[in-house]
Order: sequence, then C-alpha cells, then structure tokens
Amino acid sequence: MAHLLSTSCSLNFSSGCRPYTKPLIQDSLVFPTSLTFQTSKTPFGRLLLHRGRSQSTCTVHATTLSPSREAPKEPSHGINESSGGASKSQRVMVIGGDGYCGWATALHLSKVGYEVAIVDSLVRRLFDHQLGLDSLTPISSIHDRIRCWKSLTGKSIELYIGDVCDFEFLSEAFKSFEPDSVVHFGEQRSAPYSMIDRSRAVFTQQNNVMGTLNVLFAIKEYREECHLVKLGTMGEYGTPNIDIEEGYITITHNGRTDTLPYPKQASSFYHLSKVHDSNNIAFTCKAWGIRATDLNQGVVYGVRTDETEMHEELCNRFDYDGVFGTALNRFCVQAAVGHPLTVYGKGGQTRGYLDIRDTVQCVEIAIANPAKAGEFRVFNQFTEQFSVNELAALVTKAGEKLGLDVQTTSVPNPRVEAEEHYYNAKHTKLIELGLKPHLLSDSLLDSLLNFTIKYKDRVDTKQIMPSVSWRKMGAKPRTVTA
Amino acid sequence: MAHLLSTSCSLNFSSGCRPYTKPLIQDSLVFPTSLTFQTSKTPFGRLLLHRGRSQSTCTVHATTLSPSREAPKEPSHGINESSGGASKSQRVMVIGGDGYCGWATALHLSKVGYEVAIVDSLVRRLFDHQLGLDSLTPISSIHDRIRCWKSLTGKSIELYIGDVCDFEFLSEAFKSFEPDSVVHFGEQRSAPYSMIDRSRAVFTQQNNVMGTLNVLFAIKEYREECHLVKLGTMGEYGTPNIDIEEGYITITHNGRTDTLPYPKQASSFYHLSKVHDSNNIAFTCKAWGIRATDLNQGVVYGVRTDETEMHEELCNRFDYDGVFGTALNRFCVQAAVGHPLTVYGKGGQTRGYLDIRDTVQCVEIAIANPAKAGEFRVFNQFTEQFSVNELAALVTKAGEKLGLDVQTTSVPNPRVEAEEHYYNAKHTKLIELGLKPHLLSDSLLDSLLNFTIKYKDRVDTKQIMPSVSWRKMGAKPRTVTA
Repeated sequence: MAHLLSTSCSLNFSSGCRPYTKPLIQDSLVFPTSLTFQTSKTPFGRLLLHRGRSQSTCTVHATTLSPSREAPKEPSHGINESSGGASKSQRVMVIGGDGYCGWATALHLSKVGYEVAIVDSLVRRLFDHQLGLDSLTPISSIHDRIRCWKSLTGKSIELYIGDVCDFEFLSEAFKSFEPDSVVHFGEQRSAPYSMIDRSRAVFTQQNNVMGTLNVLFAIKEYREECHLVKLGTMGEYGTPNIDIEEGYITITHNGRTDTLPYPKQASSFYHLSKVHDSNNIAFTCKAWGIRATDLNQGVVYGVRTDETEMHEELCNRFDYDGVFGTALNRFCVQAAVGHPLTVYGKGGQTRGYLDIRDTVQCVEIAIANPAKAGEFRVFNQFTEQFSVNELAALVTKAGEKLGLDVQTTSVPNPRVEAEEHYYNAKHTKLIELGLKPHLLSDSLLDSLLNFTIKYKDRVDTKQIMPSVSWRKMGAKPRTVTA
Repeated sequence: MAHLLSTSCSLNFSSGCRPYTKPLIQDSLVFPTSLTFQTSKTPFGRLLLHRGRSQSTCTVHATTLSPSREAPKEPSHGINESSGGASKSQRVMVIGGDGYCGWATALHLSKVGYEVAIVDSLVRRLFDHQLGLDSLTPISSIHDRIRCWKSLTGKSIELYIGDVCDFEFLSEAFKSFEPDSVVHFGEQRSAPYSMIDRSRAVFTQQNNVMGTLNVLFAIKEYREECHLVKLGTMGEYGTPNIDIEEGYITITHNGRTDTLPYPKQASSFYHLSKVHDSNNIAFTCKAWGIRATDLNQGVVYGVRTDETEMHEELCNRFDYDGVFGTALNRFCVQAAVGHPLTVYGKGGQTRGYLDIRDTVQCVEIAIANPAKAGEFRVFNQFTEQFSVNELAALVTKAGEKLGLDVQTTSVPNPRVEAEEHYYNAKHTKLIELGLKPHLLSDSLLDSLLNFTIKYKDRVDTKQIMPSVSWRKMGAKPRTVTA
C-alpha cells in the first residue's frame, strides 16, 4: 500500500482528523472550471499538487507506489462469488469524486481495496455559491476529506483538480494515474439547473457531452483496456407506455426482428445530455472497441454509507433545495422543519429510487465485472419504484411516528412531464451480478428523518420551493435567488 | 418587393453579373467563427453590413420593406394544391445558406417568392483552406453570389455573416429579420471531418448541438410562431434489421403499445450530432411548443438547379474529395478523370439518395406546410435507395456511353459500418405533400458526368482517396493533407 511522504511539514496525519468545528464551504477552495492543476510524473513518484489556503502557495505531497501494484483486498458484498471470477480492475479513477454519489463511491472503493484517484473541478461547490444554496450537512474541503480518510484508514486517495473538458489536463491525469477503470460522475447533474436559462442549458450539454467525449478519447489514446463506468439516468427513458428494458429492446416490425437501443424521451437539457452521452459511448464501443457500462441510475436517497459515517469530516453533501434536491431527501428535510411536503402537480410521477449505499455497491459490482472489449452494457440502477404521492405518504407516516406534524401541499408542476402514467422499468442485471438492495424500510426512513432533524437549524426554507420553470425559462442570464 | 438603396456607390447592379473570370476562393473573405458582423434596425430600415474587399471598410446597404409584407408569389410544384391550404410562411432565414444544399435552397426560395436571409459564418470555406481542398466547380464569394442574383432577378437576399453559436449575433439576426421559418443547414456536415481527430470531433458536436440549441432559444425568445426546418440525416438511423420508419415507430411489447422515437444508431461523431439535435428539438417542441420539421436527408447528388444554372456566378459547390465528397458525386468525378471508382469494402452499403433539385423542393414543401405548434415532425428526405455497388455499376454504364473507360476498385473501408445489410427506409410523407421526385435516370447521369468532364482540369486526384480512418483516429491534432 502506498504511504504518504510529505515534502513539507504543513500536515500531520498522525494526529487524526480535526473535530468538525467550522461551517461548511467558507474555507473550501472553489476554482473556476478553466483553472486546472496538472500532475506529472517525476523521479519522486506521483505528485499531488495541493493549493494552500493562502491561495498563493502550493504544497506538494508525493505518494510512492510499488511498481507491482498490490491486489485489492477482498471486496464487500460477496461480489467475488457472484461475479463468476471476473477479473477485477485495480486502479479506479473517480471523476466527480467530490460530489454526492462520487464521494461516497470513492471512499467505498478505497475501503474495499482499490487504488483510487479523484478527478474533480469542484465546480459543484461553485454552483452553490452562485445560486446561494448550501448542503444541509456541513461538508469539508476535498483536501480535508482526503486527509481525514488517510488518517483513519491509512489509505491514500490521489487528487487531480481540473476540468475533464480540458483535454490536456485529463491526458496528464490519465498518464499519471493509469486507471484500469474510470467511474464518470463528473457532470452537471441537475435537471432544474439545466433549465434556469440558456447559458446553463448550453453549459450543461457542453460540459457533460464534451467532457465524456474527452474521457473516451483519453481511454482510446492512453488506456485502451480501461473500463468506463458512466453514470446515466433512468430519466433518459422518459415515461413510455410500455415496459422499460435495460438499454435495449427487441422489436419485431413488419415481420422482421432486431434488438435496438431502447428509445429515449428525455425531459430536460440535463437528461438529454445523458442521452447524448449514451449515444456517443455506444458508438465508440463499436468503432474503437471501448468497454463501457452505462448505469442508468434512479433517484438516490439517503446520505450515510459505512465509510462516510466514520467521521464528521467525511460527511457527504445533502441537497434539499429546489435546484439540486431530489424528491425523497427533500421531503425528509421538509418534514424536519415543518414545511409542507411539496408534491409537484398530481404526484403520480413514478420513478426508480435507490439508497446511496446501493449506488456505491452497484458501481463496485460494475467495476468488478467489467464489460467486454467493444461492449456497451446498460444497467438500470435502482431498487424500487415509487410515485411522488407514495413517497409523501411514507414520509408522513414516518414523521408521525417521530411526533412531527407532516402536511402535504400540491404546487404547480414546474416541469413538463406526465403526472399520471404507466411505469414499469426492469432492473435485474445488477441483482444478477450480486446486488443486495437496501430497500426503503421504516427504519431507514426513521434514520433519515432523524438525520435531517439533527441538521434542521441549517435549513434555509427559502431554498425549498421550485424556482425554475421548464416552460418559462428564457434566453437571458438568470441567477436563481431565494 | 424591396428595392435596394445603396448608401455608397461601390456597386452597380444595372450592369449585370461580371463574367466569371477569376479562380474560386482567392478573393472570398473567410472569417474565423468567432468574428461576427451584427445587424441592427435603424430608421433607415434593415441594414446589411458588407465588409469591403480591403478588409478595412464596411459598405452599408439598406433595404426598405413595406410595413405590410408582400405575399410570396405562387410557389412551384403545385404545392398549394397538395398542402390543403396550409398557411405559408413568408420570411425564411436560411442558416448555412452559403453551402451546397443551403445555397441552392436559398435561391430557390427567393425565386418562388419568399423573402430570404442567409445566415452563415462561411467556415465551410475555411475548412477547404485548412485541409487543402477545393470544390470541383469554381464558386464565387457569397457577396458576389447575392449581387448576381439581385442583378438577374431583382430579388434581394439579406446576408448575416456570423456564427449561430454566438447567441448575441443570432439574436440580432432574429430581431432584425423576423423570420417566419428558419431552415437550418448551418452545421459541420461531413462524417469524415468529424473523425479526423479529437478536436474536430469535439468541434463538430459542439458547433452543431450548441448552434441548434441557440436557434431553439432564439425562436422561443423572439419568434415563438416560427417554424424550424432542420436538416437531419438518414444516417441517424444506421442500418437496423427492420424497416426504417419516418421518425417514430409503434412498438407492442409485453402486451402494451406505444409510439416512440425510432431508435437511432449513428456511426460517426457527425451523425451523432444530428441525433443529439433531434432529441433536443423534440424536447423543446414538447416543453415550449416549438413547431419543427426534422428532414432526415439522404445522400444528395447533382449540382445544378433551375436557379444556380442561371449564371456561372451562381454556380454551386461540388465536393469530390475524401472528406466532403459523397458517393455518387465522387464517382462521377473519378469517371471523368479516369480514376477507378473507389468502393469502400464490399460495397453493399445501401442508403437513400436524392437529386439536389429535390432537396430544394422538399424544403419548400416543408415550409409551405408548417408543423403545428408543439409538433416534432420527421420526414425521411430521399427518393431512391442504392447500394454503393449499384451506383458504381450505373456510373460505369453511363461513362461507357460517353466513351470513358471506367474501372472500379475496392479500397479498405475507412469507416465502421455494415457492408452487407438489410435496408428498407420509408419515405412517403414528402410525396404525400406533393414532392415530384427527379429520379436518377440515364439522362441525369449523362448530364452529371458531362458536368464533371467540363471541370476535370480542376480535379486534384490526390484528394480522392479516403484519408480519415474511423478506427485509427487519435486524440492528437491532425491536418489531412493530400
């Protein structure tokens, strides 16, 4: 296992993590997307450039790695048994590893024995500043998070701060880290954000689509055998009136039959960017032999994983606002602060959901069972379906058990979507590979509600209501304010 | 009809067109994509900024328009009868109106009575410079072309030189011209160009997808009733083993039925950009009520239309090189110069084809029969299917009639595509609206071959062979040279 050689004495890992005492964000460093820190190989091994707090100095930490890399430790969840002995990648680059799903995944993969590098521009933290939003939970800087993880576990996570849309930066990260798998969470991931105004719509598609193109070119150029695990969304499918399959559908038409990509009907510029990604990746699998897994993820709820709950400084972000918050998490915050649960429209909108502990498990399974060369594999990554009304009823019931008075209110739907529709999406492929779902139980809802109650003094109720309208968005620049 | 008020005396339209005496390109002005000329409304009416040849002065020509715009003259092809009295748009913005299809379309629409504006960055001419390519035919500058048209017909075509990816420019063009229809050809349209290297792949998707997003936002912001006629490609569908429908397919699956977008399997970054466009446009039709027609065009052949053959200065471009040339046009040039016809691989690749005279007719039909508000309508725009081998046989036969010794050679396929496959694509919707196809007859082939023979001294045979490989493309910048 790599050990840390600090070339300066500014950090002392033996003292353990600092107890959490300071508010979130204020001391985190946020960089514009065009500013990148590059890494390079030197005789001292891999270098991590760490920008100092003064913003005028760089502290350099070098990690040494044995030339023959160690095998990862036994993974969790009995995946080895279920994967039929598939080969396991050893070095995993987690793009977007500072985000909600990315951070939890990076820690989990590090915990189970993978060598992990995080690639992130940190621009998600900038969005919060620009829109006046904040995570329910206080989150530490990525630098403090990684230091804390090292201190607790002895495991290093390498850090490359930069934008995957900058191919020069990405190339250096690839050449330096030499990933066997790339898990790509590094996209603007909010549908409402993409619908604020023209410039955010264009940014979302440009950032997501061009970033993914760059990742594909980096794999082709530098790591042809590398397995791409790309986060898609169940929202790519829309709400067709037939069963949703996992990526492909066999169609018999006028007496002939073919298996074709499942038709997509995305309903925001964000969701569309993921459809574009899927199409681009599928093409490169065919043309270049790229091996890729597209994880069409449902709505993620929860916050704690085995790893993030090890220390407050590892705490994950938790979004409840109208732009980045998602249905169940937002409902729990609303219940905690006595705000009515905001059901958009009729509330019959049905989607797939999963616990964040299953997000990290699914990614681990995908990495442990890589796609074949040239294969574009699609897994629907969720565990249960709920309508918005069903979620509101569950949160109401759980809140009452805790003595909360939970009300529900219907608000005009800011989105353009069917509010009553058929929905039956398949999700068996990850189960077949060994996924053991954490279903939404009363006890999980109790725990999640208690978690939001713990932080309820941090809630800004002005952030809760939807502030972005699908129909009314305009071309002019807009900053959503509370 | 508007008449021209020249605020300078640098041009004299009464003298007619200059006879064609100078080589192509050398005196045309090529601007980088980021340089835009904006127009604005003034008390003098619409202004056309026309950059002078010295590149240091601007000549301003103002056109006056009667406040109540005149109705277009009777269109050709009896479209009025077939459209069942659908309302006709009167002002048509042709984005990409300096290109192969765009120029012919702009002239045709002007001829049949529409008020036409061309929006073009002229970057297509820059590509030729950068790659060392040239049109078979000498083509005049867009300024000379428009002057010649005015001189011959008395009809003005307004010109906005700039990049639709620059929303400020596009907004001004919309506000100034106030289009009732937008015909959008303004995209990087070569599959091989998009496969040269990473930067061209990214450019193609960024330019095409973000440009179209901007057009959609401009319509929403400034001309909500405007009908978007967007050029797509039959290549979006790929080669499925079932019949290709026009945009949508009705699927019965597990006992339920829905009509869904036809699954797409594009096979280059260019073709993918058109798929992304289609998905984005479909969404805005649903979310914003945009009215749009997606013309999934086949491979266009031919060069002359009734309008372009009125004068040499109106002559259209004709590409035969390995990057921008398409199958039938390239074969005719090869036959003319005694170069073997280059069949890629087995030659069983089957596609839809159409005469450029049908391109202009189809666009006219689409404009005359606009989509309804919120409708995303897809027409497959081609008239006949051919395999590459069938085209080679037709050109061989036609060449022999003209005394040419036509050989055929199979070259390794630079693309990744099926070389033997089922192909049956529907194309009835434009026929139902009144399209009278110009089918590929012996006489057309004779005429096209004679045309290429006329210009054969301009052929650079080093441009003929394919120079871009789908599999071997790399991340590093590359300029294709002969």
